Amino acid sequence: MKTIAFLLCILIFQNIFGQDNSLSEREFIDLTHAFSEESVYWVTAKEFQLEKVAQGKTDAGFYYSANNFSTAEHGGTHMDAPIHFAENKQTVDLVPLENLIGTGVKIDVSAKALKNPDYLISIEDLKNWEKENSEIPQQSIILFQTGFGKFYPDAKKYLGTNERGTDAVKKLHFPGLSPEAANWLIKNRNIKAVGLDTASIDYGQSTNFATHVALMTQNVPAFENVANLEKLPATGFQVIALPMKLKGGSGGPLRIIAIR
Amino acid sequence: MKTIAFLLCILIFQNIFGQDNSLSEREFIDLTHAFSEESVYWVTAKEFQLEKVAQGKTDAGFYYSANNFSTAEHGGTHMDAPIHFAENKQTVDLVPLENLIGTGVKIDVSAKALKNPDYLISIEDLKNWEKENSEIPQQSIILFQTGFGKFYPDAKKYLGTNERGTDAVKKLHFPGLSPEAANWLIKNRNIKAVGLDTASIDYGQSTNFATHVALMTQNVPAFENVANLEKLPATGFQVIALPMKLKGGSGGPLRIIAIR
Repeated sequence: MKTIAFLLCILIFQNIFGQDNSLSEREFIDLTHAFSEESVYWVTAKEFQLEKVAQGKTDAGFYYSANNFSTAEHGGTHMDAPIHFAENKQTVDLVPLENLIGTGVKIDVSAKALKNPDYLISIEDLKNWEKENSEIPQQSIILFQTGFGKFYPDAKKYLGTNERGTDAVKKLHFPGLSPEAANWLIKNRNIKAVGLDTASIDYGQSTNFATHVALMTQNVPAFENVANLEKLPATGFQVIALPMKLKGGSGGPLRIIAIR
Repeated sequence: MKTIAFLLCILIFQNIFGQDNSLSEREFIDLTHAFSEESVYWVTAKEFQLEKVAQGKTDAGFYYSANNFSTAEHGGTHMDAPIHFAENKQTVDLVPLENLIGTGVKIDVSAKALKNPDYLISIEDLKNWEKENSEIPQQSIILFQTGFGKFYPDAKKYLGTNERGTDAVKKLHFPGLSPEAANWLIKNRNIKAVGLDTASIDYGQSTNFATHVALMTQNVPAFENVANLEKLPATGFQVIALPMKLKGGSGGPLRIIAIR
């Protein structure tokens, strides 16, 4: 009886005072590549440029440094907003924060994808993951580890070509999510968002971007060129994906982190 | 005895299964102004520009839209990294996530600042806040509500002038944090970061940027042009402030949110 009462006191105390709403005690994992002139951009897109404006001691005596930069929306670690491939759907500034923050699931397909740069993640891959783990929770953010992240920013290995321009599009070889698997996730698991460690949620050889269209017509955004996925477990983490708030943007630079 | 056992069971169950590590159930408040050609930039800085690259149905049959943009690092809702005003201190990509996520504190000085556009937030303001609330927790992120946020993006009201260029610098009138109060917060409360709803953590009439220097020599970043501070309570929220990860950057576009 005394033991029970003692345990009860501990548990009551823990419930009242121990609720850890603070995020400070959690572990953070940055899933973002830094932007530089080495960042990977789509072969037809304007690349990242930084212009130094000031660096050094001013006449007034204090140190000061500042830069300007220019970039395509879709390069480096970035988000595709639904309007990128779906007319009248959400622009990047209007994607609700609720869709960008939530329970993360990592699906590692690198064993298959590293053997075949044209690999398409299938419904079977999703079902196999569920067999080994548990049913993908409703309203999750799904991150696919193809293994290609380790090649970043070596375009020859990461994209399949280091050529640039419209002629280079046919030479793109990297894995992606099949439209069938995208539709399965939307229909059966009501996902918030998807992401992966390649330059596009459609595989390199896609010509109709059917996975983008499948996701974005349902207002599901995609995170591309995501970093450090090998540092994540399969489950047990939250994702916070905050894109630059570009008014009317079709996407933009993304800072994406995991929190455990 | 039965009642105690029953309560014990409930509490054990709650402790095992009820730990809400999920962020999905929390409330999110976006503290970010969207970037557009209306965004407020320092009077000498390069302003935001968006260039449309594509918008409409492609020959292949799918819809596609994309843009490029260019900007100064320091405009709109953005972060000043320590190196902005302190040589060899952290660049924006290297500010630890631990310093950008944590317990938030809002200090509302709008009653004074809206009467005096040259208002400097004082140590007394901090002590008054602590008297009315509680001691500012160590390692907090401090957000100052000057009330000027409601003028954004009307430069005449928000900055004190809608002129641009070096001659306009002398005409800047908006409140800021005094260097003394900044030093007090660093020394006594070991703060992670500060932010406010004006264009600069130093007030408009500053010529030596002593508050920037005080903060940044101690690797404390500042968030500027923060939005929606009137929507926050004084305490009881977490801040997540994720800047664009610009390699070597002195600051950059920031997506900052509060979570309750």
